[in-house]
Amino acid sequence: ADPAALAGARAHQDSLTKPRGALGVLEEVAVRLAGAAGVSPPPLPVPAALAIFAADHGVHAQGVTPWPQEVTVQMVGNFLAGGAVANAFAAQIGASVTVVDVGVAADLPPAPGLTVSKVAYGTADLSLGPAMTAGQVVAALEAGIAVARDLVEQGARCLVTGDMGIANTTASAALICAFTGRDAAAVTGRGTGVDDETLARKVEVVRRALRANGLPGGAGGASGEGLPGGSDGVSAAGLPKGLPGGAGGVSGEGPSTGPGGASAEGRAVPALEILAAVGGLEHAAIAGFILGGAALRVPVILDGVIAGSAALAAAALAPAVVDHCVAGHRSAEPGHAAALAHLGLRPLVELELRLGEGTGGLLAHPIVCAAVRVMHEVATFDSAGVTDKEA
Amino acid sequence: ADPAALAGARAHQDSLTKPRGALGVLEEVAVRLAGAAGVSPPPLPVPAALAIFAADHGVHAQGVTPWPQEVTVQMVGNFLAGGAVANAFAAQIGASVTVVDVGVAADLPPAPGLTVSKVAYGTADLSLGPAMTAGQVVAALEAGIAVARDLVEQGARCLVTGDMGIANTTASAALICAFTGRDAAAVTGRGTGVDDETLARKVEVVRRALRANGLPGGAGGASGEGLPGGSDGVSAAGLPKGLPGGAGGVSGEGPSTGPGGASAEGRAVPALEILAAVGGLEHAAIAGFILGGAALRVPVILDGVIAGSAALAAAALAPAVVDHCVAGHRSAEPGHAAALAHLGLRPLVELELRLGEGTGGLLAHPIVCAAVRVMHEVATFDSAGVTDKEA
Repeated sequence: ADPAALAGARAHQDSLTKPRGALGVLEEVAVRLAGAAGVSPPPLPVPAALAIFAADHGVHAQGVTPWPQEVTVQMVGNFLAGGAVANAFAAQIGASVTVVDVGVAADLPPAPGLTVSKVAYGTADLSLGPAMTAGQVVAALEAGIAVARDLVEQGARCLVTGDMGIANTTASAALICAFTGRDAAAVTGRGTGVDDETLARKVEVVRRALRANGLPGGAGGASGEGLPGGSDGVSAAGLPKGLPGGAGGVSGEGPSTGPGGASAEGRAVPALEILAAVGGLEHAAIAGFILGGAALRVPVILDGVIAGSAALAAAALAPAVVDHCVAGHRSAEPGHAAALAHLGLRPLVELELRLGEGTGGLLAHPIVCAAVRVMHEVATFDSAGVTDKEA
Repeated sequence: ADPAALAGARAHQDSLTKPRGALGVLEEVAVRLAGAAGVSPPPLPVPAALAIFAADHGVHAQGVTPWPQEVTVQMVGNFLAGGAVANAFAAQIGASVTVVDVGVAADLPPAPGLTVSKVAYGTADLSLGPAMTAGQVVAALEAGIAVARDLVEQGARCLVTGDMGIANTTASAALICAFTGRDAAAVTGRGTGVDDETLARKVEVVRRALRANGLPGGAGGASGEGLPGGSDGVSAAGLPKGLPGGAGGVSGEGPSTGPGGASAEGRAVPALEILAAVGGLEHAAIAGFILGGAALRVPVILDGVIAGSAALAAAALAPAVVDHCVAGHRSAEPGHAAALAHLGLRPLVELELRLGEGTGGLLAHPIVCAAVRVMHEVATFDSAGVTDKEA
């Protein structure tokens, strides 16, 4: 983040006709976006563009959800027809909707609003071994970067992450375990609604996935403190040029690296290896989408637990990207709170949504706009002739 | 609330292409608004209209705030010039802004956007005796009702409460004590930002106000359980015709009544007597605004602690009005949470705002719109050809 823009934004906030700090969390949002944009006040984050990354999951075979896998492709059809909740929420804020097939387990007919960047027909079963090859992860990351670049070229000034993939909260839980060191039982949730028996199976599947891939947390029981996840300097490969340097800086050297967590034997596991082991194609693509938005200095509003787990990967690759992220909401999934705490992000909306699609991110967009608009439009004590108690 | 509309809205929610309950609190908001409107889906709550009720407070003389009283009139000027945070937030959602002088301690020049319904040049000092006469309370209530009626006639389909009045969190705290039975120390907060010494004085002033007016809670220390506040049938006077009957019904008989709390001697104190004793002119006007909106079946988004305390009075007069209210946010003031709990309302935004003006209510409006829009636009499992796991 740009220190001068941060300082300028803070001073500007304090000169406006309101008690200091009276806008609470919104003041910090506006200041952070100024730092990310490198200018105060930061640009209004309009128009917004939602990208829904869709993919299927081999782990579906383990019975982690009552929904059939075909629902992924059915819901893609629903998005393209404008009939899903994400479409209604996008219409509410004037956002465009782009559906990106990065790994749906079926061939989709071309349609307006659909970008086909299919890397595979779904992932392999992460509970048996790596979900993806290294090449697949990089291809999905690059697909996400390209979508961010295209949307910004088309005029978007705010990106909102969306996802669709039956069984993708299982991959999210495994990613969160690997990046934060939390126990599977603490971060695995009911997704779109599973019963107690399925939840217990889902926790066991996450543990098995960590074991099968040599990641910590597979043994069961609480694993103790979190593991470092991108808090030191990193090297990032295949990343867009021009990513603003933040706390950790980005040095762009070797391929497919970036520290992520630690293996069961204690070795540092690169973030891309963790993504390949237990991620989904939409997780990798969303990580790329975040990297792409950050590189272009456009704010990225994160949706729920899928975006949160993808952001852990993006932050492990390039810590500075977190400056460009806004946590749109906190979902009902327990792992989401763990991911946001690890990223140091406070969610704007907490209304027990557990839908995905980008719905929580879209709901937060007007709040982000309001926070920034204050910086552009509100009078100062001096200009309005209002007495300042601090003056 | 209309039982058929409530049931229809619940069934419609469950038929939409999303897991049951996946929109969390938003589903309940949409269902409640259907019940209040008497039709499912309920009308989209657009356009919205913000009314900022401005008034001064005799209790300012007790040193409960560092802000000079002139700031009330200065901020009215700022609202009319479009320079306040409420203006920026209203612009964000396309809401009109009306400033209503119900009791500013100065004569205001006519201006576009200003409605002058001045009842008095501020209240009397509530710490010494009644802040208002019974006639003043009724006049302020009627002013609020008239503003609601005028805005709806002009096309508003959602009303947002706003307030401006230096020292008005002190009156709010006293109202909340009287209506909920909570202790002054538990519900009195720092308002727009007072130091420890001023906060201690403010708590003592609230206690003195309750004592001086024969209301419970003036003795200091925790006063025990809450008092009944409008949970039984009520008679309401000076209220608009056509208020939809709810849990408690409205029987409209004698003047200036409606049960509110209990006196220090245990007698039931009418709500209007409590308003007169420790309220502000803007509190009474906002109570009227809520009654007026409810009578016209237009949803009213409540802002912060001033609106919350005014809603306690409105609900004591006519319990059914709560069905038409949406709690926009929860402010940093501790009394606000107590008021919302008493009303049974869950706030939509919790971002530590403590500004007033209607800012928290305006922030919530897009969320309410999104909740209702889902009912109008989202496809059903059948229509979209999506497999329903529950079917």
